[in-house]
Amino acid sequence: MLKVSIIGASGYAGAQLTALVHQHPVMQLKGLYVSASSADAGKLFTQVAGEYRHFPDLPLEPLCQSGCGALADSSDLVFLCTPHQFSHDVMPQLINKQAKIFDLSGAYRLPDLDTFAAFYGFANQHPSIQQKAVYGLAEWFADDIANTSLVAVPGCYPTASLTGLLPLQRTGLLDTAFRPVINAVSGVTGAGRKASLTTSFCEVSLQAYGVLSHRHTPEIESYLDHQVIFTPHLGNFKRGILATITAKLNPEVTANDVEQAFLRHYRHQPLVRLTSAFPKVDDVVNSPFADVHWQVDEQSHYVVIGCAIDNLLKGAASQAMQCANLAFDLPPTQGLLP
Amino acid sequence: MLKVSIIGASGYAGAQLTALVHQHPVMQLKGLYVSASSADAGKLFTQVAGEYRHFPDLPLEPLCQSGCGALADSSDLVFLCTPHQFSHDVMPQLINKQAKIFDLSGAYRLPDLDTFAAFYGFANQHPSIQQKAVYGLAEWFADDIANTSLVAVPGCYPTASLTGLLPLQRTGLLDTAFRPVINAVSGVTGAGRKASLTTSFCEVSLQAYGVLSHRHTPEIESYLDHQVIFTPHLGNFKRGILATITAKLNPEVTANDVEQAFLRHYRHQPLVRLTSAFPKVDDVVNSPFADVHWQVDEQSHYVVIGCAIDNLLKGAASQAMQCANLAFDLPPTQGLLP
Amino acid sequence: MLKVSIIGASGYAGAQLTALVHQHPVMQLKGLYVSASSADAGKLFTQVAGEYRHFPDLPLEPLCQSGCGALADSSDLVFLCTPHQFSHDVMPQLINKQAKIFDLSGAYRLPDLDTFAAFYGFANQHPSIQQKAVYGLAEWFADDIANTSLVAVPGCYPTASLTGLLPLQRTGLLDTAFRPVINAVSGVTGAGRKASLTTSFCEVSLQAYGVLSHRHTPEIESYLDHQVIFTPHLGNFKRGILATITAKLNPEVTANDVEQAFLRHYRHQPLVRLTSAFPKVDDVVNSPFADVHWQVDEQSHYVVIGCAIDNLLKGAASQAMQCANLAFDLPPTQGLLP
Amino acid sequence: MLKVSIIGASGYAGAQLTALVHQHPVMQLKGLYVSASSADAGKLFTQVAGEYRHFPDLPLEPLCQSGCGALADSSDLVFLCTPHQFSHDVMPQLINKQAKIFDLSGAYRLPDLDTFAAFYGFANQHPSIQQKAVYGLAEWFADDIANTSLVAVPGCYPTASLTGLLPLQRTGLLDTAFRPVINAVSGVTGAGRKASLTTSFCEVSLQAYGVLSHRHTPEIESYLDHQVIFTPHLGNFKRGILATITAKLNPEVTANDVEQAFLRHYRHQPLVRLTSAFPKVDDVVNSPFADVHWQVDEQSHYVVIGCAIDNLLKGAASQAMQCANLAFDLPPTQGLLP
Repeated sequence: MLKVSIIGASGYAGAQLTALVHQHPVMQLKGLYVSASSADAGKLFTQVAGEYRHFPDLPLEPLCQSGCGALADSSDLVFLCTPHQFSHDVMPQLINKQAKIFDLSGAYRLPDLDTFAAFYGFANQHPSIQQKAVYGLAEWFADDIANTSLVAVPGCYPTASLTGLLPLQRTGLLDTAFRPVINAVSGVTGAGRKASLTTSFCEVSLQAYGVLSHRHTPEIESYLDHQVIFTPHLGNFKRGILATITAKLNPEVTANDVEQAFLRHYRHQPLVRLTSAFPKVDDVVNSPFADVHWQVDEQSHYVVIGCAIDNLLKGAASQAMQCANLAFDLPPTQGLLP
Repeated sequence: MLKVSIIGASGYAGAQLTALVHQHPVMQLKGLYVSASSADAGKLFTQVAGEYRHFPDLPLEPLCQSGCGALADSSDLVFLCTPHQFSHDVMPQLINKQAKIFDLSGAYRLPDLDTFAAFYGFANQHPSIQQKAVYGLAEWFADDIANTSLVAVPGCYPTASLTGLLPLQRTGLLDTAFRPVINAVSGVTGAGRKASLTTSFCEVSLQAYGVLSHRHTPEIESYLDHQVIFTPHLGNFKRGILATITAKLNPEVTANDVEQAFLRHYRHQPLVRLTSAFPKVDDVVNSPFADVHWQVDEQSHYVVIGCAIDNLLKGAASQAMQCANLAFDLPPTQGLLP
Repeated sequence: MLKVSIIGASGYAGAQLTALVHQHPVMQLKGLYVSASSADAGKLFTQVAGEYRHFPDLPLEPLCQSGCGALADSSDLVFLCTPHQFSHDVMPQLINKQAKIFDLSGAYRLPDLDTFAAFYGFANQHPSIQQKAVYGLAEWFADDIANTSLVAVPGCYPTASLTGLLPLQRTGLLDTAFRPVINAVSGVTGAGRKASLTTSFCEVSLQAYGVLSHRHTPEIESYLDHQVIFTPHLGNFKRGILATITAKLNPEVTANDVEQAFLRHYRHQPLVRLTSAFPKVDDVVNSPFADVHWQVDEQSHYVVIGCAIDNLLKGAASQAMQCANLAFDLPPTQGLLP
Repeated sequence: MLKVSIIGASGYAGAQLTALVHQHPVMQLKGLYVSASSADAGKLFTQVAGEYRHFPDLPLEPLCQSGCGALADSSDLVFLCTPHQFSHDVMPQLINKQAKIFDLSGAYRLPDLDTFAAFYGFANQHPSIQQKAVYGLAEWFADDIANTSLVAVPGCYPTASLTGLLPLQRTGLLDTAFRPVINAVSGVTGAGRKASLTTSFCEVSLQAYGVLSHRHTPEIESYLDHQVIFTPHLGNFKRGILATITAKLNPEVTANDVEQAFLRHYRHQPLVRLTSAFPKVDDVVNSPFADVHWQVDEQSHYVVIGCAIDNLLKGAASQAMQCANLAFDLPPTQGLLP
């Protein structure tokens, strides 16, 4: 059995990942950790995650930076479900030990360090670590993920956006003079498990935010190799993301070309479902799938692509697990599908 | 025009009341106040209450206790949408001035001071004020409301509960050996406008709370003159309360007796609607009505009563306005219905 | 008092309009009608619209086409909240009588008859009527509305889209080589009051529909005089529409130019609120307002515009009332704001 | 592998059960059936159940009554997720064949045939079958379930109600002069997968229904052996049931007695979780658990019990699977927990 440590296990993504490890046939939970200053430190996991209260009584152990090295030496996998700055700071202690590291924060996702500093508000002090990090978009970087010890698991919006756009971009179908327009709506768990007026039940109502300035824009652009306009919205639901993407195709591109591009890339991907209608958020909630559909207007050369994922699963925990499976040469859906 | 001051105008009930005064034909807003320590002090009302951003630019003025006397002397009406302790503390400065006072907190609702202390966690230091306070359940205490200068506006749950039960209790139809069982579900605005994990969008899901210990129990019992079992629930909606009440009738009581009791008390009440089916929360949201329906089983002598209100209107702001209309000899629905 | 007849009063928009007329100071309800084949024919309005059960007991009278002429002769205003085909068919009977006609269907919105036939599935047989119809986007066609006897009240999506885009288009700020991309999410009332699996509570979940083919696309394009990509979505809420519009500006356009364009057109419009942040659906629900905000990226020359309305009010009933006020030389907000 | 046939697989409970069989380690789907008149007949299961569109392409085969015998002879298990009348009518063809039968309808739940006829509107014509049927409340009738060939799987409300009440009733703690008052709120999937105005997204809002007349009342009373007042409500959520039960205890009963009763019956039951606070619907949604909590007032001798389940799982499909596991001597949680 592979020994797993999860840092940041009390947040929504961390709890979800704990549940995935719990049901994984060849992994076992070695320890759950939270930052030493967390209000949850010392509590049992089952106390903070009501839907998992039948789980074994694992404590949320307080972890300080100095303990990370020992942790990485005694684990086969370490998942970081932690703030960007925390992941950034502890990474030197974690890497080059026994464990493979899967970081769900944004700390090591952006190869361009100037862009990172501009969008994250602090500098990446560890450029050599950044160079080793592999972007964990599982369907697209499987080989690299299999051969690294540090995976930067993608953000939720980039997962939905890139899953929808990469088949067309990699096949050269997109009109490069046009920025794809990505409108996406996320469930409120995307904002994390903490009290704030913005995510108060009474205040939540469909609304755009981070317009023309969200940090997932450069992440999408880095891995799409194309500029985009990305507009995130907070939706009045708990889980899920729906991305609706409008892109322009090169003049000669047919609807059939688009279909072939999606089929070629996803036909054999078990966790991408090409659906017969535009996807619905609830069809992917609590599942590790990305549902994708598109419509082409051959006259105007526009394509509209819809991609739905569960922000906490394919947008976080289950994608991390896909990466872990790849990194340990396990079937990619192990522990995710029955 | 009657000059109105509202203290605590930045909360949900306070903002709602501000809107009611704004549309009232013979009232005008003299000033909006928040506690000096409030994060909203100094902001404009239109900044904190997005749905009212077209209102005139009234500031939320910081108010300290010492300023209350002058306020009450320069206003015709003062509404308190403030925490229990605040209302309790400032009341000596407010009363016996020009203004009539309408307190939406629980500070002066409970005539029994021992019960008050047990349920509110502090002693009512002003028993003589308590003796003057009139309970503002508008349909039932209209004469007293018309002749007082201090109205303790009822809580949201007691309004729904008493509206459903008083017609039967006052007519002597209830079996006194049996405690009516009141199950009620409230929208999340009932918990107030503040960030907390409990009212976070991701955490809210139908759940009972305050079981066998909620402070609205003695309030209901005081004005019903009967013990009850009251179980409140937090529901996954923003506004509204639905109370479902199960009571036992005296052996000889018929379904017709029950109907007559409701008709007698509410037939001429413009803000109680006797409906033809059990009420639905959304039919009263954004309205000043209480919707009431009931079903009798003559064989078992049980009656089930449903009462729906908007917790921020009939359960708070519009009931305060009903009381204000009564206190100033205006039509009870003025400013509430077109 | 102006005598008002409403045809199609049992639907969501019709009921909302009935409520607006009920509270209008110089209008009175003369009659409510439904089609003779409606299951609601003969019922009372108060039976089908629970939130208005305190209204006077007006019956929903069955109306056949032959009765329309007399209706229009005995009314000052006739509102049609009816299916497109019904409005189309009865219009010859209604016009050129005493009443001014306000048609909330799409029957007479599209000046190009070929486009109409392609998107509505039947031909407009009354081109001369079409020529007289004025598009009822109240802020933009006020003079024409004041001088016509037939107003084609805009669709909900076009209202939100055009309100957001027209200030830029009319000022010549838009890059005409680029189609504005409109992503909009509507509450489920937009689908009308009828049972269907699509709008069943259990099936509704955020989802795009009508992609690249929705009939509101040509309506937007007709009055914007610019092609667009319009993607509607069904959202998991009852009322409201949020449109997020991405457009490209001409190279020299500054953020200040954009601001001035919005201010020039809307500064004095009482029912458009230029907000300080991107609008939230719930801030306009149950209100006649359109909330508008935008963000410009001067480097890339993109602008993102958000516009929120209540689909049943500014997107239907209250806009119809705005038009009616203009047509009868009343203040535009009469009966809409206190 | 055990061969499983599911009749009524296109409804919400049927689809859920299909998913449970799909993930069960020793069961395999032999066939999915719908009534010959169903609009879904001939479609693929993956077409009607979007969240399961990655499943193998099993058709929804039309089934007429005459085919049931062969079906039961070629299956090890037959699950009926069908209307009451259908289950009633086909049962003679199904029993006494190879398969064990698990009927999720109400056809064979009520031992008293007069009561059945009164509440179901048709007579049970097969009293000898009724005598053989075992009530499938898995925690309470495990031995009988293991030794029958016909399990009448309980209704969703009775499961929540009996799970909360039976520990006290069986221990003799309830005051028999008092009817327990059960208030329960169900998600809309409880009303089945069909278009109706009642379950339309725009119409759903918390509301009581079936007051003093719901057919789950006699089902609860039969297996509790005690009369109750049961009031169901439709809630504005898709899945889950919360039952809040108010009961009176015998005079000498202590809080500790109540706790011991719950512990004795549920301590070793893997699918009942005794929680540390009143249960929340979302903690059990998508899970096979019943969450139970209670509060005793020793002075008044009242107890309030909360029980939450997923209406489609513990209230239908997963309870059926618990019964199937018991009937085939498998671990009760097999296929339900990882």
